[in-house]
Amino acid sequence: MTDLHLPLDRAAGRLAAQIAAGFRSAVRSGRLTAGTRLPSSRDLARDLDVSRGVVVAAYEQLTAEGFLVARRGDGTRIAPLARPDDGPAPLPRGAAPPSPEPRPEPVLPYDLWPGQPDLSAFPRERWIAAARSALRTLPHDVLTYPDPGGVPALRAELAGYLARVRAAHTDPGRVVIMNGVAHGLSALLRLLRADGHTVLAVEDPTSVRQVPMLEASGFRVVRVPVDGEGVDVDALAGTGARAVLVTPAHQYPTGVVLSPARRAELIAWARGVDGLILEDDYDAEFRYDREPVGCLQGVEPDRVVLLGSVSKSLAPALRLGWAVAPPAMAVRLREHRGNTDLGGPVLEQYALAEFLRGGGYDRHLRTMRRRYRSRRDALAEALNVHLPGATVHGVSAGIHLYVELPAGCDEDDVAARAGRAGVSVAGARPLWSPARAGHAPPALVLGYAGLTETRLVEAAELLGRAVTQGAEG
Amino acid sequence: MTDLHLPLDRAAGRLAAQIAAGFRSAVRSGRLTAGTRLPSSRDLARDLDVSRGVVVAAYEQLTAEGFLVARRGDGTRIAPLARPDDGPAPLPRGAAPPSPEPRPEPVLPYDLWPGQPDLSAFPRERWIAAARSALRTLPHDVLTYPDPGGVPALRAELAGYLARVRAAHTDPGRVVIMNGVAHGLSALLRLLRADGHTVLAVEDPTSVRQVPMLEASGFRVVRVPVDGEGVDVDALAGTGARAVLVTPAHQYPTGVVLSPARRAELIAWARGVDGLILEDDYDAEFRYDREPVGCLQGVEPDRVVLLGSVSKSLAPALRLGWAVAPPAMAVRLREHRGNTDLGGPVLEQYALAEFLRGGGYDRHLRTMRRRYRSRRDALAEALNVHLPGATVHGVSAGIHLYVELPAGCDEDDVAARAGRAGVSVAGARPLWSPARAGHAPPALVLGYAGLTETRLVEAAELLGRAVTQGAEG
Repeated sequence: MTDLHLPLDRAAGRLAAQIAAGFRSAVRSGRLTAGTRLPSSRDLARDLDVSRGVVVAAYEQLTAEGFLVARRGDGTRIAPLARPDDGPAPLPRGAAPPSPEPRPEPVLPYDLWPGQPDLSAFPRERWIAAARSALRTLPHDVLTYPDPGGVPALRAELAGYLARVRAAHTDPGRVVIMNGVAHGLSALLRLLRADGHTVLAVEDPTSVRQVPMLEASGFRVVRVPVDGEGVDVDALAGTGARAVLVTPAHQYPTGVVLSPARRAELIAWARGVDGLILEDDYDAEFRYDREPVGCLQGVEPDRVVLLGSVSKSLAPALRLGWAVAPPAMAVRLREHRGNTDLGGPVLEQYALAEFLRGGGYDRHLRTMRRRYRSRRDALAEALNVHLPGATVHGVSAGIHLYVELPAGCDEDDVAARAGRAGVSVAGARPLWSPARAGHAPPALVLGYAGLTETRLVEAAELLGRAVTQGAEG
Repeated sequence: MTDLHLPLDRAAGRLAAQIAAGFRSAVRSGRLTAGTRLPSSRDLARDLDVSRGVVVAAYEQLTAEGFLVARRGDGTRIAPLARPDDGPAPLPRGAAPPSPEPRPEPVLPYDLWPGQPDLSAFPRERWIAAARSALRTLPHDVLTYPDPGGVPALRAELAGYLARVRAAHTDPGRVVIMNGVAHGLSALLRLLRADGHTVLAVEDPTSVRQVPMLEASGFRVVRVPVDGEGVDVDALAGTGARAVLVTPAHQYPTGVVLSPARRAELIAWARGVDGLILEDDYDAEFRYDREPVGCLQGVEPDRVVLLGSVSKSLAPALRLGWAVAPPAMAVRLREHRGNTDLGGPVLEQYALAEFLRGGGYDRHLRTMRRRYRSRRDALAEALNVHLPGATVHGVSAGIHLYVELPAGCDEDDVAARAGRAGVSVAGARPLWSPARAGHAPPALVLGYAGLTETRLVEAAELLGRAVTQGAEG
């Protein structure tokens, strides 16, 4: 049995465990096959120069686990069920992390791909300080299984914050903590399915990343056009949907704010069809030209669920968001978490509560608003200079620009040329439904959150050249 | 319009926002009803002694939000859709946090309710240090949307750890990070439903907390008896189920370890029905009398999904667990997270990876094993003295005891008497299926993780008195 290859590290101790590990590995690699008879414990102990008790312990361990079978009169054999390994698992397909929009690799020197905030601005030290401060003062009891609807302290802080900053109609009983907007959305869709909903209306154009997720929830997804006033409620009424996902504060990607008339129409629609409005409060804290328009949920709290997160205000990696729902729906969302993951991690909920309470969140948002406004202005001005035929759509808000290219431009061609010049940009056409993509004017969606003004100006210049060359080519 | 009650705090600034908030509140409280005509901006500005521009800004804000409607020639009115508030939402029903077993309130002086570790032992400072260390060194990129299957660094550390400590058959491609065992289980059940599974077998007795969750997944749950060797595989084969949830390392609640023969039968069963074994590795790190038996997944990695978490080893509030699944199933679990919550928070994943890498996790487990073993021994000995007719079942492991009471005892009566004496204990009968609960001998499930030896001895004495008095009464 010297071919067992059981190398022992005598200095490391735990010899029985080492022998057991060696046998498991030999079985998995196929060196030992089912039915093989093992040497007696006495013989193996002598071969390995260990005490017999060590081998007996290893055999007992492997027998308890099911690798070995010991029968009186038949010695100890490799169990008939053990079989060779089929090699390590391949890494899951599509191992790249998802982004709000599928993005190309590698990242280029000027990264204008939309969908994420300035990650370098995440207040690491203050966040850790908030977490430490929370963890130092919390009683032991909060370390047990949490309230699946979220830590009460955070729900209370958020209720106050959203009422103050988003004019939401909140109290802690309406707030349910989720792992981000997508999580709130997928949970709501499960509840709506249980209520008999089968059709979900979404804006056209919209973030494509979420469409597969919406369809995975078992919904037929219908697209409703967005014009200069926001979503077209007449068209919505023609879809048969009784649930709609909208971005009233700052439509993604066009940057349109839902007009007062449309807000009233949308609410009337929801009442008329006994429906529900899912309000994705995407980047709503970032309005630069005026006070942000309060959320729709604040006007019609019984027919609107407000979905928000810190993904754009702090970092997507925190996976921390919320739903503000009518009370009965909030109860069901909480039950849903109780029936799926028992709620989210509590330490970062306490850290966010601390951040909100101490004013750290407000201060961070003020800093980021100044920074993003300045970056937005720099990019918009530079595009005026270097891409004079293009039109920047939407209000002064958010962390991306929707830029309509000069008529006749080929969006894909511009994006490809820009890429070769080191500027990664996303074309807008994939964000439209196939039916409307053909009529959509060529446009780019440019995320400016992560670049300084200087680099944004350089990127605009390169982009301008790519468009000009495309027109000449 | 003096009845508008718009109290202004002039020192606080942002007067337009204050006026808008006052109007919203007046609409929600019913003081202003739909259709009410508002004073002109000029009049209101004079009444409030503010500049007219301030009132215009407030009116514009409220119009943008949908609270007001402005029509030429008709002035500004409260929108027809705004309506009075129906009062704050009640707190969700059952606002108490869930526990592995539903527990009574209030907590008594001697808390032997099972299901949680010693929360006072959570290594707060070292955990924060690991998180800070991770956050200080991580590149900005990791703060974006994460890999929904979990941070690669943690999957790699866990693959190594589970191979070493649980004899699991792992590589990072088989590991998917979940918010705890319940989350892994609910996700797997959704996949199994999609594959046509309709029946799930669970052990009898079992943790009752999860039964509603299992049924919420749309499964018919069938119970399979557990005897001194673990789950009865012949009975399992008679259920028609092709999926079974088991606790081989230390059956909950009986404390039985699945025997070698049953392990082989269970694997043969899974192969025969083309089925899947869901292995809940409940408290498996806490074996006191010998090396823990390796997990079943290590023997049959293609038909077993190993589910584990840090809920018992660190704290349930971290909501951090894993599934080790066959590669194709791991891919689907990762997709499931991508279609539901986009993955869990990353900072604590990095903190755990750091804790594993640096040996902090092993050290913590060694400390806790010593502590729990000593507590278990103290309680078992004290029960021997004070409750001589009772039998402690199960191996020396875990954080609870299954104590069979003397024949003729009334379990509920004992629990009630113990409660009046200040000792909270859980009866075992609720953990049995209704069909078997009548035949189950009276027993208690005692969690000893959170009490010192001295207090456990005191609790045993009080418990003994409660049993004796019950027998006399």
